[in-house]
Amino acid sequence: MICDNITVNKQNHLCFAGFDTVEMAQKYGTPLYLMDEAKIRQHINEYKNAFKKYFPVGSAPEFASKSFSAKQIYRIMQDEGMNIDVVSVGEIYTAKSAGFDMSHCFFHGNNKTDYDIAFAIDNGVGYFVIDSFEEIEAVNLMAKDKGIVQKALLRITPGIDTHTHQKISTGNVDSKFGFAIATGMADEAVQAVLKCENISLCGFHCHIGSQIFESDPFILACDLMLDFIAHIKATQNYTADILNLGGGFGVKYTNDQPTLNLDEKIGEVAAAINQKCDELGIDVPKIAMEPGRSIVADAGMTLYTVGSVKEIKGYKNYVSIDGGMTDNPRFALYESPYTVMLASRANDTPDFKATIAGRCCESGDIIQNDVTIPKPQRNEILAVLTTGAYNYSMASNYNRVARPAVVMLSDKGDYIAVKRETLEDICSLDV
Amino acid sequence: MICDNITVNKQNHLCFAGFDTVEMAQKYGTPLYLMDEAKIRQHINEYKNAFKKYFPVGSAPEFASKSFSAKQIYRIMQDEGMNIDVVSVGEIYTAKSAGFDMSHCFFHGNNKTDYDIAFAIDNGVGYFVIDSFEEIEAVNLMAKDKGIVQKALLRITPGIDTHTHQKISTGNVDSKFGFAIATGMADEAVQAVLKCENISLCGFHCHIGSQIFESDPFILACDLMLDFIAHIKATQNYTADILNLGGGFGVKYTNDQPTLNLDEKIGEVAAAINQKCDELGIDVPKIAMEPGRSIVADAGMTLYTVGSVKEIKGYKNYVSIDGGMTDNPRFALYESPYTVMLASRANDTPDFKATIAGRCCESGDIIQNDVTIPKPQRNEILAVLTTGAYNYSMASNYNRVARPAVVMLSDKGDYIAVKRETLEDICSLDV
Repeated sequence: MICDNITVNKQNHLCFAGFDTVEMAQKYGTPLYLMDEAKIRQHINEYKNAFKKYFPVGSAPEFASKSFSAKQIYRIMQDEGMNIDVVSVGEIYTAKSAGFDMSHCFFHGNNKTDYDIAFAIDNGVGYFVIDSFEEIEAVNLMAKDKGIVQKALLRITPGIDTHTHQKISTGNVDSKFGFAIATGMADEAVQAVLKCENISLCGFHCHIGSQIFESDPFILACDLMLDFIAHIKATQNYTADILNLGGGFGVKYTNDQPTLNLDEKIGEVAAAINQKCDELGIDVPKIAMEPGRSIVADAGMTLYTVGSVKEIKGYKNYVSIDGGMTDNPRFALYESPYTVMLASRANDTPDFKATIAGRCCESGDIIQNDVTIPKPQRNEILAVLTTGAYNYSMASNYNRVARPAVVMLSDKGDYIAVKRETLEDICSLDV
Repeated sequence: MICDNITVNKQNHLCFAGFDTVEMAQKYGTPLYLMDEAKIRQHINEYKNAFKKYFPVGSAPEFASKSFSAKQIYRIMQDEGMNIDVVSVGEIYTAKSAGFDMSHCFFHGNNKTDYDIAFAIDNGVGYFVIDSFEEIEAVNLMAKDKGIVQKALLRITPGIDTHTHQKISTGNVDSKFGFAIATGMADEAVQAVLKCENISLCGFHCHIGSQIFESDPFILACDLMLDFIAHIKATQNYTADILNLGGGFGVKYTNDQPTLNLDEKIGEVAAAINQKCDELGIDVPKIAMEPGRSIVADAGMTLYTVGSVKEIKGYKNYVSIDGGMTDNPRFALYESPYTVMLASRANDTPDFKATIAGRCCESGDIIQNDVTIPKPQRNEILAVLTTGAYNYSMASNYNRVARPAVVMLSDKGDYIAVKRETLEDICSLDV
């Protein structure tokens, strides 16, 4: 099994976090997102422990809300003492409504409107991660208006060559995000912020990509960012307190992908940071990271009911399910890999090769091509594993399909974290 | 201009359906979908007139709901006497709530659950378009239970070679949809349905693809489908009353795409059908088609507010807007082309080449690469044209971004067809 929270019971049913998935499907209906609360907490603590072990006091991971934003997720984050990052007023509103302490919140985004900036300040967001010259000006003005000094980081694009590091796409100079070091924009941005009386610059942020299983790309980013920190100290007499390395650690979606040893990788990054700071003669900054996927992805599973099994002789087989790109658009968007299992007969011989097709009237509505499972029948339950990240958060009502419920599985039992959307809900905005 | 409902007024503002878009943005906020009601009605009547002119009595176009499903759209369809197709209980519920006469409704989908089938029958859906053997059995059982005979078409995959007709992907044998003629599944399906006492078979359906500007692919589909109809008449003594050719006519998104002459193309298709039926010695069946995009696409426009303009020397320029893949995921999904204009200064010289980037924390959140517009400034209004189809219907809350309002522009003035989503709405399902 690709994660230790997946087992099979005596009824030959797939179990998740110890719960019989076929029973869960009967109890709550399908499609259904399941979330393993203990696994979320486990990952949080893996990050917190590694940060405590390797990085200076004051370093902390932040949960990347965009991977899964819902009130109950923020309650867990608050309970575990996690920082969070948010990217919209919607995420700010959700976190605050859940009782999250917004001073531990970092506000990201390449396009914060004047409304967004005012809303974030009014709601006590701890830090802005500033992304453009327009935002520097707007935050400073708004903070002045409201009589506060707003803490902020600057988002920097370190400029890593994507040809040698293909996974590292977001840290590239050519990006909608941040200020590039290579073009001099980063220097200018620091100058501009340091002139702002109502912004307190706390350090720098970068983000290099996602699904990274090695420490090398992070070490390369640290190298560039610490050079930049030393350069800014030398040229502008400003010492960064925080270096935020963004997100990106990988998750095992299929058996051919590796399992990440987080403690080891963070240890390697820390060793490289310490050595580099020593060479540069600068203090090691507080380190932040923004795990999202690696906190929630393998804490999630989606259950579907099989509708039809179409065997097209000489071509291929299609298994149609009662969800699809509306609850998981990641294959349609990126051809993302997933592991699929027949939950109803989990240990039966997987000898039927099929494409798992969603229910939307769109030929691209595919969950996965050519998986091998036991041949299913109408009304059996199919499970797609590792769907905790970027599934519920990316769900749509395309074809006016209702979004599934999210059921949390915990030591205290199963409970609804997000209600299933109703037909009335879908029409609620229609005049 | 790519459509005759786009003009520029004396204030140098872009106008849509005669309404000043900058005024609309001020009145309703951004992002904002605008819909030109007269243009929708115009396209409906182009289809209806061409059908009346060229096809047998009883032939009729159906509006493909998936392109834009909302109560007000169905009210317009009812008012114009259009048939509709739907693909989910959500679309059935919406249409019925809007007062649409459900006997004129065709229910599609590769995966109709038992619940869906019962719901559709209970709500008086006129026709099922049956897509699998499981569905034949389920519809027959459910109709028997409810004491009715359900009218239905069978969805057939004609098996057009996609190598010679690349645009025609959905009619291919290798598809999650329908019964393939080539493999004998279509024959078997007819046999199976004709044995069902509670299903009345009314004909056949096929769908070959989208964005088709020529009649040839439709003529080829007709050729195959009419051969099939003659074959079924000869072998199973069943005469199809209706031949539904699906959707697919193209829309001009950019200046390099053609303008479709619908009357001419439908005339060409009709001539080919008449000739083929003559050759086969069969009556011309009633013809149906399912236009969605070609009814609503150029009746739509999306307005955004510019947030930042990032000039990355030696690389490229990014203009960030306050929406993106959350309200229009079509570039992220298919790299779909769109025309972009600076609504605030519509006739200024377009001399600034830029990529239009959405606000999501995702590097793939792009509306269009390398468009040329006048260089915009923060808080100016940007318009993306031809967004009436597959934009609102595909919108999501990714990053917890609220879905925009839909404002209808009509002879009687501007009015809200779909309300803007609020922060409370976004959290309404969170426990």
